[in-house]
Amino acid sequence: MNKQEKNAFMEAAVKEAFKGVRGNHGGPFGAVVVQNGIILARAHNKVVSSKDPTAHAEILAIRKTSKILNRFDLSDCEIYSSCEPCPMCLAAILWARIKKIYYGCTRDDAAAIGFDDRVIYEILDIKKEKKHLKKIMLNRERCLQPFKEWTDKTDRITY
Amino acid sequence: MNKQEKNAFMEAAVKEAFKGVRGNHGGPFGAVVVQNGIILARAHNKVVSSKDPTAHAEILAIRKTSKILNRFDLSDCEIYSSCEPCPMCLAAILWARIKKIYYGCTRDDAAAIGFDDRVIYEILDIKKEKKHLKKIMLNRERCLQPFKEWTDKTDRITY
Repeated sequence: MNKQEKNAFMEAAVKEAFKGVRGNHGGPFGAVVVQNGIILARAHNKVVSSKDPTAHAEILAIRKTSKILNRFDLSDCEIYSSCEPCPMCLAAILWARIKKIYYGCTRDDAAAIGFDDRVIYEILDIKKEKKHLKKIMLNRERCLQPFKEWTDKTDRITY
Repeated sequence: MNKQEKNAFMEAAVKEAFKGVRGNHGGPFGAVVVQNGIILARAHNKVVSSKDPTAHAEILAIRKTSKILNRFDLSDCEIYSSCEPCPMCLAAILWARIKKIYYGCTRDDAAAIGFDDRVIYEILDIKKEKKHLKKIMLNRERCLQPFKEWTDKTDRITY
């Protein structure tokens, strides 16, 4: 991918971000997923319009791409996001096995306009999570039973 | 919530996990969202059947709950998950403003059956992310423009 192509992909992500702002769909964030130099999916944050706290640009772009490719493994794709992905989206990108992320603004830029995910990064640090969140273990033994059934299955599909 | 009620909610999450295993929908994980002692939404992992890498139990349960309550703020809800949430789901729970998580199995239990999110936790540690992932900044100045437009909006809805 040459610089001009990369710029064009990021510009498509920025256009999505503007679309979201102008339509009052949610925060000013856009993302596109690219495969072999072609944009497969474009999305912007729709937390407000869809009333879904998980409707971040990257999540929606990944979900669209998976639908298009009819698979959950997007390891041959790259993602361009107008802003550094939040921990939810970063983890989603990793679950999707996307190996390369281009991003524009930083998490500090996002924090400066009121989208502060630094606390989430902090909570994901196991040493600090207790400070912010009640996380209580309950009935582990019982909950292990579906795990047992899973490992016993011969036709399981791993991901 | 008394212990018996909590057990019942976790049992509902476990039932979901079994449903997923038996239906070949995805990994052996279930979750329910509870509000005022009532289960609002039940879900299990559908990564395989829906071919969506983001279709984890907690994400689906949150999305269902948001649809039912018609809002993205679920701060009056609790979540019961048959397994300790992965970083994607944990961050989603935080974005949804859920304050209490009950979980059964641990991340180590999940890793033991092939669902290893420890590398994701590691990547979310900014000091280590470079080891696993190409994350490249591109055109920050341009990407800041939707941010500027967002902060200039008088009718923006924050979340």
